[in-house]
Amino acid sequence: VTTEADPRFQRSREAIVNAARELLLAHGPAAVTHNQIAELAEAMATVRLPFFDGAASPYRGWLTRELTALARQLDQHDVRAVTTTLSSTALWDTAMDARRAGFAEILSQRLSAALAQAEKQGEFSPRTDAANAAALAIGPLYYRATIERAVADASLIEQCVVAAGTWHSP
Amino acid sequence: VTTEADPRFQRSREAIVNAARELLLAHGPAAVTHNQIAELAEAMATVRLPFFDGAASPYRGWLTRELTALARQLDQHDVRAVTTTLSSTALWDTAMDARRAGFAEILSQRLSAALAQAEKQGEFSPRTDAANAAALAIGPLYYRATIERAVADASLIEQCVVAAGTWHSP
Repeated sequence: VTTEADPRFQRSREAIVNAARELLLAHGPAAVTHNQIAELAEAMATVRLPFFDGAASPYRGWLTRELTALARQLDQHDVRAVTTTLSSTALWDTAMDARRAGFAEILSQRLSAALAQAEKQGEFSPRTDAANAAALAIGPLYYRATIERAVADASLIEQCVVAAGTWHSP
Repeated sequence: VTTEADPRFQRSREAIVNAARELLLAHGPAAVTHNQIAELAEAMATVRLPFFDGAASPYRGWLTRELTALARQLDQHDVRAVTTTLSSTALWDTAMDARRAGFAEILSQRLSAALAQAEKQGEFSPRTDAANAAALAIGPLYYRATIERAVADASLIEQCVVAAGTWHSP
Protein backbone atom coordinates (compact mmCIF):
# COMPACT_ATOMS: atom_id res chain seq x y z
CA VAL A 1 0.00 0.00 0.00
CA THR A 2 1.29 3.44 -0.94
CA THR A 3 0.94 5.91 1.92
CA GLU A 4 2.67 9.01 3.16
CA ALA A 5 4.58 6.87 5.66
CA ASP A 6 5.94 4.65 2.86
CA PRO A 7 9.75 4.48 3.28
CA ARG A 8 10.16 5.02 -0.49
CA PHE A 9 8.87 8.57 -0.04
CA GLN A 10 10.95 9.19 3.07
CA ARG A 11 14.20 8.23 1.37
CA SER A 12 13.69 10.11 -1.86
CA ARG A 13 12.41 13.22 -0.15
CA GLU A 14 15.33 13.26 2.28
CA ALA A 15 17.87 12.97 -0.51
CA ILE A 16 16.43 15.90 -2.42
CA VAL A 17 15.55 17.99 0.56
CA ASN A 18 18.95 17.80 2.21
CA ALA A 19 20.46 19.32 -0.90
CA ALA A 20 17.77 21.87 -1.55
CA ARG A 21 16.27 23.10 1.69
CA GLU A 22 19.09 25.39 2.79
CA LEU A 23 19.49 26.80 -0.70
CA LEU A 24 15.88 27.47 -1.51
CA LEU A 25 13.90 27.98 1.63
CA ALA A 26 16.30 30.17 3.60
CA HIS A 27 17.15 32.64 0.85
CA GLY A 28 15.03 31.88 -2.19
CA PRO A 29 16.24 31.21 -5.73
CA ALA A 30 18.02 34.60 -5.80
CA ALA A 31 20.65 33.22 -3.41
CA VAL A 32 21.30 30.06 -5.40
CA THR A 33 24.50 29.95 -7.43
CA HIS A 34 25.18 27.98 -10.59
CA ASN A 35 27.37 25.59 -8.59
CA GLN A 36 24.59 24.98 -6.11
CA ILE A 37 22.12 24.34 -8.92
CA ALA A 38 24.59 21.79 -10.31
CA GLU A 39 24.80 20.13 -6.88
CA LEU A 40 21.02 20.02 -6.65
CA ALA A 41 20.84 18.45 -10.11
CA GLU A 42 23.35 15.81 -8.97
CA ALA A 43 21.32 15.08 -5.83
CA MET A 44 18.21 14.67 -7.96
CA ALA A 45 20.03 12.20 -10.19
CA THR A 46 20.39 9.83 -7.22
CA VAL A 47 16.68 9.85 -6.46
CA ARG A 48 14.41 7.08 -7.64
CA LEU A 49 10.98 8.56 -8.26
CA PRO A 50 8.54 6.62 -6.07
CA PHE A 51 5.49 6.93 -8.35
CA PHE A 52 3.57 4.59 -10.70
CA ASP A 53 5.64 1.56 -9.76
CA GLY A 54 4.16 -1.89 -9.12
CA ALA A 55 0.97 -1.58 -11.14
CA ALA A 56 -1.49 -4.43 -10.45
CA SER A 57 -5.17 -5.29 -10.90
CA PRO A 58 -7.52 -3.71 -10.07
CA TYR A 59 -5.72 -0.94 -11.93
CA ARG A 60 -8.24 1.81 -11.26
CA GLY A 61 -7.69 1.44 -7.50
CA TRP A 62 -3.94 1.29 -8.03
CA LEU A 63 -3.95 4.53 -10.08
CA THR A 64 -6.15 6.28 -7.49
CA ARG A 65 -3.67 5.34 -4.76
CA GLU A 66 -0.65 6.44 -6.79
CA LEU A 67 -2.20 9.81 -7.68
CA THR A 68 -3.24 10.30 -4.05
CA ALA A 69 0.34 9.63 -2.92
CA LEU A 70 1.63 12.08 -5.55
CA ALA A 71 -0.88 14.74 -4.46
CA ARG A 72 0.12 14.30 -0.81
CA GLN A 73 3.78 14.81 -1.78
CA LEU A 74 2.86 17.97 -3.70
CA ASP A 75 1.14 19.26 -0.54
CA GLN A 76 4.61 19.52 1.05
CA HIS A 77 6.22 22.94 0.84
CA ASP A 78 9.69 21.53 0.17
CA VAL A 79 8.48 19.26 -2.64
CA ARG A 80 6.75 22.24 -4.27
CA ALA A 81 9.95 24.27 -3.88
CA VAL A 82 12.11 21.61 -5.52
CA THR A 83 9.61 20.94 -8.33
CA THR A 84 9.02 24.56 -9.29
CA THR A 85 12.73 25.36 -9.03
CA LEU A 86 13.49 22.42 -11.30
CA SER A 87 10.98 23.56 -13.93
CA SER A 88 12.19 27.15 -13.70
CA THR A 89 15.96 26.59 -13.70
CA ALA A 90 15.63 23.94 -16.42
CA LEU A 91 14.86 26.80 -18.81
CA TRP A 92 18.42 28.16 -18.58
CA ASP A 93 20.53 25.34 -17.06
CA THR A 94 21.18 22.29 -19.25
CA ALA A 95 22.00 19.93 -16.35
CA MET A 96 18.69 20.76 -14.68
CA ASP A 97 16.90 20.45 -18.00
CA ALA A 98 18.29 16.94 -18.39
CA ARG A 99 16.89 16.05 -14.93
CA ARG A 100 13.53 17.55 -15.83
CA ALA A 101 13.42 15.57 -19.07
CA GLY A 102 14.45 12.39 -17.24
CA PHE A 103 11.77 12.71 -14.56
CA ALA A 104 9.07 13.58 -17.11
CA GLU A 105 10.04 10.58 -19.26
CA ILE A 106 10.03 8.14 -16.34
CA LEU A 107 6.59 9.25 -15.13
CA SER A 108 5.16 9.07 -18.65
CA GLN A 109 6.65 5.66 -19.43
CA ARG A 110 5.58 4.03 -16.16
CA LEU A 111 2.04 5.36 -16.46
CA SER A 112 1.74 4.35 -20.14
CA ALA A 113 3.04 0.87 -19.36
CA ALA A 114 0.59 0.44 -16.49
CA LEU A 115 -2.35 1.61 -18.60
CA ALA A 116 -1.32 -0.70 -21.45
CA GLN A 117 -1.31 -3.58 -18.94
CA ALA A 118 -4.77 -2.50 -17.68
CA GLU A 119 -6.05 -2.37 -21.27
CA LYS A 120 -4.73 -5.88 -21.94
CA GLN A 121 -6.66 -7.11 -18.89
CA GLY A 122 -9.84 -5.43 -20.17
CA GLU A 123 -9.96 -2.94 -17.31
CA PHE A 124 -9.19 0.21 -19.31
CA SER A 125 -9.77 1.80 -22.72
CA PRO A 126 -7.65 4.77 -23.77
CA ARG A 127 -9.42 7.82 -25.22
CA THR A 128 -6.23 9.37 -26.57
CA ASP A 129 -2.58 8.77 -27.35
CA ALA A 130 -0.77 7.07 -24.43
CA ALA A 131 1.75 9.93 -24.51
CA ASN A 132 -1.02 12.22 -23.18
CA ALA A 133 -1.80 10.13 -20.09
CA ALA A 134 0.77 11.72 -17.77
CA ALA A 135 -0.26 15.28 -18.61
CA LEU A 136 -3.97 14.43 -18.15
CA ALA A 137 -3.55 12.51 -14.87
CA ILE A 138 -0.69 14.44 -13.21
CA GLY A 139 -1.17 17.90 -14.74
CA PRO A 140 -4.25 18.87 -12.70
CA LEU A 141 -2.51 17.87 -9.45
CA TYR A 142 0.59 19.84 -10.40
CA TYR A 143 -1.48 22.92 -11.30
CA ARG A 144 -3.48 22.64 -8.08
CA ALA A 145 -0.28 22.42 -6.00
CA THR A 146 1.92 25.02 -7.68
CA ILE A 147 -0.45 27.53 -9.32
CA GLU A 148 -3.57 27.31 -7.15
CA ARG A 149 -1.48 26.34 -4.10
CA ALA A 150 -4.32 24.33 -2.61
CA VAL A 151 -4.97 20.73 -1.62
CA ALA A 152 -6.06 18.18 -4.23
CA ASP A 153 -9.09 16.56 -2.60
CA ALA A 154 -10.56 13.14 -3.43
CA SER A 155 -12.93 14.58 -6.05
CA LEU A 156 -10.10 16.15 -8.07
CA ILE A 157 -8.03 12.96 -7.84
CA GLU A 158 -11.04 10.92 -9.03
CA GLN A 159 -11.40 13.22 -12.04
CA CYS A 160 -7.70 12.74 -12.85
CA VAL A 161 -8.24 8.96 -12.86
CA VAL A 162 -11.22 9.41 -15.20
CA ALA A 163 -9.30 11.84 -17.45
CA ALA A 164 -6.74 9.10 -18.19
CA GLY A 165 -9.36 7.05 -20.08
CA THR A 166 -12.43 4.84 -19.64
CA TRP A 167 -12.43 2.24 -16.85
CA HIS A 168 -14.20 -1.13 -16.81
CA SER A 169 -14.79 -3.42 -13.80
CA PRO A 170 -12.20 -6.21 -13.63
CA VAL B 1 -11.66 34.66 -32.94
CA THR B 2 -8.81 34.06 -30.52
CA THR B 3 -5.53 33.54 -32.32
CA GLU B 4 -1.83 34.04 -31.71
CA ALA B 5 -2.05 37.33 -33.60
CA ASP B 6 -4.78 38.62 -31.27
CA PRO B 7 -3.66 42.06 -30.00
CA ARG B 8 -4.74 41.07 -26.46
CA PHE B 9 -1.89 38.57 -26.35
CA GLN B 10 0.57 40.97 -27.88
CA ARG B 11 -0.07 43.68 -25.30
CA SER B 12 -0.04 41.47 -22.23
CA ARG B 13 3.02 39.53 -23.35
CA GLU B 14 4.94 42.68 -24.10
CA ALA B 15 4.17 44.16 -20.68
CA ILE B 16 5.42 41.09 -18.87
CA VAL B 17 8.26 40.33 -21.19
CA ASN B 18 9.76 43.81 -21.11
CA ALA B 19 10.11 43.52 -17.35
CA ALA B 20 11.23 39.93 -17.25
CA ARG B 21 13.32 39.07 -20.28
CA GLU B 22 16.55 40.78 -19.28
CA LEU B 23 16.29 39.46 -15.74
CA LEU B 24 15.47 35.87 -16.47
CA LEU B 25 16.77 34.89 -19.84
CA ALA B 26 20.17 36.56 -19.78
CA HIS B 27 21.27 35.38 -16.34
CA GLY B 28 18.65 33.01 -14.97
CA PRO B 29 16.84 33.28 -11.64
CA ALA B 30 20.18 33.29 -9.77
CA ALA B 31 20.84 36.81 -11.03
CA VAL B 32 17.47 38.20 -10.00
CA THR B 33 17.41 40.35 -6.87
CA HIS B 34 14.50 40.88 -4.49
CA ASN B 35 13.98 44.37 -5.91
CA GLN B 36 13.78 43.00 -9.43
CA ILE B 37 11.29 40.37 -8.35
CA ALA B 38 9.20 43.16 -6.83
CA GLU B 39 9.37 45.08 -10.13
CA LEU B 40 8.35 41.97 -12.04
CA ALA B 41 5.41 41.47 -9.66
CA GLU B 42 4.36 45.09 -10.29
CA ALA B 43 4.59 44.61 -14.07
CA MET B 44 2.41 41.52 -13.77
CA ALA B 45 -0.18 43.49 -11.81
CA THR B 46 -0.77 45.70 -14.85
CA VAL B 47 -1.44 42.76 -17.15
CA ARG B 48 -4.97 41.71 -17.98
CA LEU B 49 -4.96 37.95 -18.53
CA PRO B 50 -6.32 37.37 -22.05
CA PHE B 51 -7.93 33.97 -21.37
CA PHE B 52 -11.50 32.67 -20.91
CA ASP B 53 -13.11 36.02 -21.68
CA GLY B 54 -16.17 36.45 -23.88
CA ALA B 55 -17.72 33.00 -23.51
CA ALA B 56 -20.52 32.37 -25.99
CA SER B 57 -22.50 29.49 -27.50
CA PRO B 58 -21.46 27.03 -28.78
CA TYR B 59 -19.39 26.79 -25.59
CA ARG B 60 -17.48 23.66 -26.48
CA GLY B 61 -15.97 25.38 -29.51
CA TRP B 62 -15.26 28.48 -27.45
CA LEU B 63 -13.42 26.46 -24.76
CA THR B 64 -11.43 24.59 -27.42
CA ARG B 65 -10.32 27.92 -28.94
CA GLU B 66 -9.41 29.41 -25.53
CA LEU B 67 -7.38 26.36 -24.48
CA THR B 68 -5.66 26.32 -27.87
CA ALA B 69 -4.71 30.00 -27.43
CA LEU B 70 -3.42 29.25 -23.91
CA ALA B 71 -1.39 26.28 -25.16
CA ARG B 72 0.14 28.39 -27.95
CA GLN B 73 1.19 30.99 -25.37
CA LEU B 74 2.75 28.28 -23.20
CA ASP B 75 4.76 27.19 -26.26
CA GLN B 76 6.67 30.48 -26.01
CA HIS B 77 9.95 30.29 -24.11
CA ASP B 78 9.45 33.66 -22.41
CA VAL B 79 5.92 32.82 -21.24
CA ARG B 80 7.23 29.56 -19.74
CA ALA B 81 10.05 31.52 -18.05
CA VAL B 82 7.67 34.03 -16.49
CA THR B 83 5.15 31.38 -15.43
CA THR B 84 7.62 29.00 -13.80
CA THR B 85 9.47 31.89 -12.15
CA LEU B 86 6.18 33.16 -10.75
CA SER B 87 5.28 29.74 -9.30
CA SER B 88 8.78 29.29 -7.89
CA THR B 89 9.37 32.73 -6.37
CA ALA B 90 5.80 32.81 -5.00
CA LEU B 91 6.96 30.21 -2.48
CA TRP B 92 9.22 32.69 -0.70
CA ASP B 93 8.10 36.18 -1.87
CA THR B 94 4.71 37.43 -0.62
CA ALA B 95 4.23 40.00 -3.42
CA MET B 96 4.74 37.31 -6.06
CA ASP B 97 2.50 34.94 -4.14
CA ALA B 98 -0.27 37.56 -4.22
CA ARG B 99 0.12 37.77 -8.04
CA ARG B 100 0.06 33.99 -8.35
CA ALA B 101 -3.12 33.80 -6.23
CA GLY B 102 -4.72 36.60 -8.25
CA PHE B 103 -4.01 34.97 -11.62
CA ALA B 104 -5.18 31.55 -10.40
CA GLU B 105 -8.41 33.03 -9.02
CA ILE B 106 -9.17 34.97 -12.23
CA LEU B 107 -8.67 31.91 -14.45
CA SER B 108 -10.79 29.73 -12.16
CA GLN B 109 -13.61 32.27 -11.83
CA ARG B 110 -13.86 33.02 -15.56
CA LEU B 111 -13.85 29.33 -16.48
CA SER B 112 -16.42 28.45 -13.79
CA ALA B 113 -18.68 31.30 -14.88
CA ALA B 114 -18.47 30.23 -18.54
CA LEU B 115 -19.24 26.60 -17.71
CA ALA B 116 -22.18 27.65 -15.50
CA GLN B 117 -23.50 29.64 -18.48
CA ALA B 118 -23.00 26.61 -20.76
CA GLU B 119 -24.84 24.42 -18.24
CA LYS B 120 -27.77 26.85 -18.10
CA GLN B 121 -27.99 26.65 -21.91
CA GLY B 122 -28.04 22.85 -21.75
CA GLU B 123 -24.68 22.48 -23.50
CA PHE B 124 -22.67 21.20 -20.53
CA SER B 125 -23.00 19.01 -17.43
CA PRO B 126 -20.33 19.22 -14.74
CA ARG B 127 -18.89 15.97 -13.39
CA THR B 128 -17.27 17.58 -10.38
CA ASP B 129 -17.08 20.72 -8.27
CA ALA B 130 -16.73 23.86 -10.45
CA ALA B 131 -13.62 24.72 -8.42
CA ASN B 132 -11.86 21.77 -10.11
CA ALA B 133 -12.50 22.94 -13.68
CA ALA B 134 -9.39 25.11 -14.05
CA ALA B 135 -7.03 22.42 -12.75
CA LEU B 136 -8.60 19.78 -15.04
CA ALA B 137 -8.65 21.93 -18.18
CA ILE B 138 -5.48 24.01 -17.77
CA GLY B 139 -3.33 21.65 -15.65
CA PRO B 140 -2.49 19.19 -18.48
CA LEU B 141 -1.40 22.06 -20.75
CA TYR B 142 0.73 23.58 -17.98
CA TYR B 143 2.36 20.21 -17.24
CA ARG B 144 2.98 19.57 -20.94
CA ALA B 145 4.63 23.01 -21.34
CA THR B 146 6.71 23.25 -18.16
CA ILE B 147 7.45 19.66 -17.10
CA GLU B 148 7.35 17.73 -20.40
CA ARG B 149 8.45 20.84 -22.36
CA ALA B 150 6.60 19.72 -25.45
CA VAL B 151 3.81 21.03 -27.63
CA ALA B 152 0.18 20.45 -26.64
CA ASP B 153 -1.33 19.06 -29.84
CA ALA B 154 -5.03 19.06 -30.79
CA SER B 155 -5.64 15.64 -29.21
CA LEU B 156 -4.40 16.77 -25.77
CA ILE B 157 -6.42 19.99 -25.99
CA GLU B 158 -9.54 17.99 -26.94
CA GLN B 159 -9.02 15.78 -23.86
CA CYS B 160 -8.74 18.90 -21.67
CA VAL B 161 -12.11 20.08 -23.02
CA VAL B 162 -13.60 16.66 -22.21
CA ALA B 163 -11.99 16.57 -18.76
CA ALA B 164 -13.92 19.71 -17.77
CA GLY B 165 -17.24 17.83 -17.93
CA THR B 166 -19.81 16.33 -20.33
CA TRP B 167 -20.77 18.28 -23.45
CA HIS B 168 -24.12 18.27 -25.27
CA SER B 169 -24.88 19.63 -28.74
CA PRO B 170 -26.46 23.10 -28.57
